[in-house]
Amino acid sequence: MRDDCIFCKIIDGRIPSASIYEDEDFRVILDISPAAKGHALILPKEHYANLYELPEDLAAKAMLLAKKLAAHMTEKLQCDGFNLVQNNGEVAGQTVFHFHLHLIPRYKDGDNRDLLTWKQLSYGDGEAQALAELLRYPKA
Amino acid sequence: MRDDCIFCKIIDGRIPSASIYEDEDFRVILDISPAAKGHALILPKEHYANLYELPEDLAAKAMLLAKKLAAHMTEKLQCDGFNLVQNNGEVAGQTVFHFHLHLIPRYKDGDNRDLLTWKQLSYGDGEAQALAELLRYPKA
Repeated sequence: MRDDCIFCKIIDGRIPSASIYEDEDFRVILDISPAAKGHALILPKEHYANLYELPEDLAAKAMLLAKKLAAHMTEKLQCDGFNLVQNNGEVAGQTVFHFHLHLIPRYKDGDNRDLLTWKQLSYGDGEAQALAELLRYPKA
Repeated sequence: MRDDCIFCKIIDGRIPSASIYEDEDFRVILDISPAAKGHALILPKEHYANLYELPEDLAAKAMLLAKKLAAHMTEKLQCDGFNLVQNNGEVAGQTVFHFHLHLIPRYKDGDNRDLLTWKQLSYGDGEAQALAELLRYPKA
């Protein structure tokens, strides 16, 4: 628990929230400034700044929980689609530095219809293959 | 394998790609129309249309792989942040209907700086709590 972290304060109840799920590892709350109605955040109870810091078992459990909640929320909200978004670093749009996985229901008639489209860049000749060579994992 | 699925064709080699990782469950390729340099896609080898269809064990494994690749790619690309994005349904921006998890490196001096910000909506009095009641999981 970090005294300067708003999500830590929400998790331990010092700040109220609209909670929809809790287990020993996670708490799930509604985002108070949603991209769409029902937008929720999966929060690990322990403080980890981002995906880099999050332990492997919690990363796996977070996605399993996201899958279950996506099905549950889609049924309850009768939404038409669903996004998962997880941001790491200020340049990536992260504003609270406690790992969180966004669950964003999408609606055919919703605001934010253009959310999560992006300008498509392109690679020059041979650039993608050279980059793939650099990025090959695990490196031989 | 679906004959009408471009990702199935990439996975079995009928369409060439810039591949950076492969194991028994997944193949990871560079997105040919990237949001940023090094933008990659985690693809399950079996055809599942979306997160709803993806088996639980593959959902967990996909996030574990995303965590490992985020660390690896951040080191190799020297990027300044990282996004995970996973879209389900046309209204959510999904364009290829074979599950894929976007791995998007972010750069301080990059294009698409505004990627993954969204218009923040707000709830009326009591609306978030009523919604949380509807969405509570598992429902008692």
